[in-house]
Amino acid sequence: MAINAGRLISLPKRRRVVALAVAAACIATWSLSLWAKPDDAVPYPEGYRMWTHVRTALIGPQSPAFESFGGLHHIYANDKAMEGYRAGRFPDGSVLVFELLETRENAGVTTEGQRKRVGVMVKESKLYAETGGWGFESFLGDSRTVRRLNAEGRIACFKCHEPQKDRDFVFSEFRK
Amino acid sequence: MAINAGRLISLPKRRRVVALAVAAACIATWSLSLWAKPDDAVPYPEGYRMWTHVRTALIGPQSPAFESFGGLHHIYANDKAMEGYRAGRFPDGSVLVFELLETRENAGVTTEGQRKRVGVMVKESKLYAETGGWGFESFLGDSRTVRRLNAEGRIACFKCHEPQKDRDFVFSEFRK
Repeated sequence: MAINAGRLISLPKRRRVVALAVAAACIATWSLSLWAKPDDAVPYPEGYRMWTHVRTALIGPQSPAFESFGGLHHIYANDKAMEGYRAGRFPDGSVLVFELLETRENAGVTTEGQRKRVGVMVKESKLYAETGGWGFESFLGDSRTVRRLNAEGRIACFKCHEPQKDRDFVFSEFRK
Repeated sequence: MAINAGRLISLPKRRRVVALAVAAACIATWSLSLWAKPDDAVPYPEGYRMWTHVRTALIGPQSPAFESFGGLHHIYANDKAMEGYRAGRFPDGSVLVFELLETRENAGVTTEGQRKRVGVMVKESKLYAETGGWGFESFLGDSRTVRRLNAEGRIACFKCHEPQKDRDFVFSEFRK
């Protein structure tokens, strides 16, 4: 049926149909990408495992923070964020990563398990002016695309960091 | 008395005495430096906190390794050692650091305490040919000069690493 219908369309018309279909598909893909990643979306911190390791802590079951942040976490900083630790103010382009891992325990030794999530703070003063100049995001597990935060979640991050205003909203200090 | 004795020495002779004294002092200092730091001494890994963080583990009181290695430890690698993790063989100039920290615990959260020691492995195939091409050292606490290992201690390090021969004597793997 489809083939027969195709045969009824003259060649130039068929070309026009194909061109329109391709254009429509392009527009749809572009719209979808806009929907999936708005202009102020915090990018995945590619290569952060090669950045500077700032410090580490383990949040255990006895902590009230366990449900949200339980596990072993490392903080990593890119070069600009390292300038920020030194200067006390973080320049635009600073990126801090809060990497949260599951833990395994065997015979008294606690080791690193699966990655639970990759929390990110990006400093872009103008883009994120409403949240202290910082954009917040959290990527699920090993994913570079699955984002855990909606607008409400991002504001919750900022509210938690807000009391650190004098330290440019950053909790961690670089352990020398 | 000394001044009077000095007056008895003619000027060229006095010069010779001074030159000899200076030479003797130089030789003594040089000998002392040789004694303090032999040619095969592993240097302190300056700047290792900016190197790549390889992985982390916590050795607790239940572990039989607690007495020797109890605390939170991080492994750091310089760029050459990172090549080694990728290639499986570590090139000369590779340096791995085993940084051991005390831990503090408060309300279920374990954080990093004082530095207990900085263990170092340096790959120089010829210099350390007898210990798999690796030189071993351990610096006490925050010190860059107080070395914990004598010849026996360095051999003990190697003996422990020896079963890892197929992995170029390295235990750790880079956690991606």
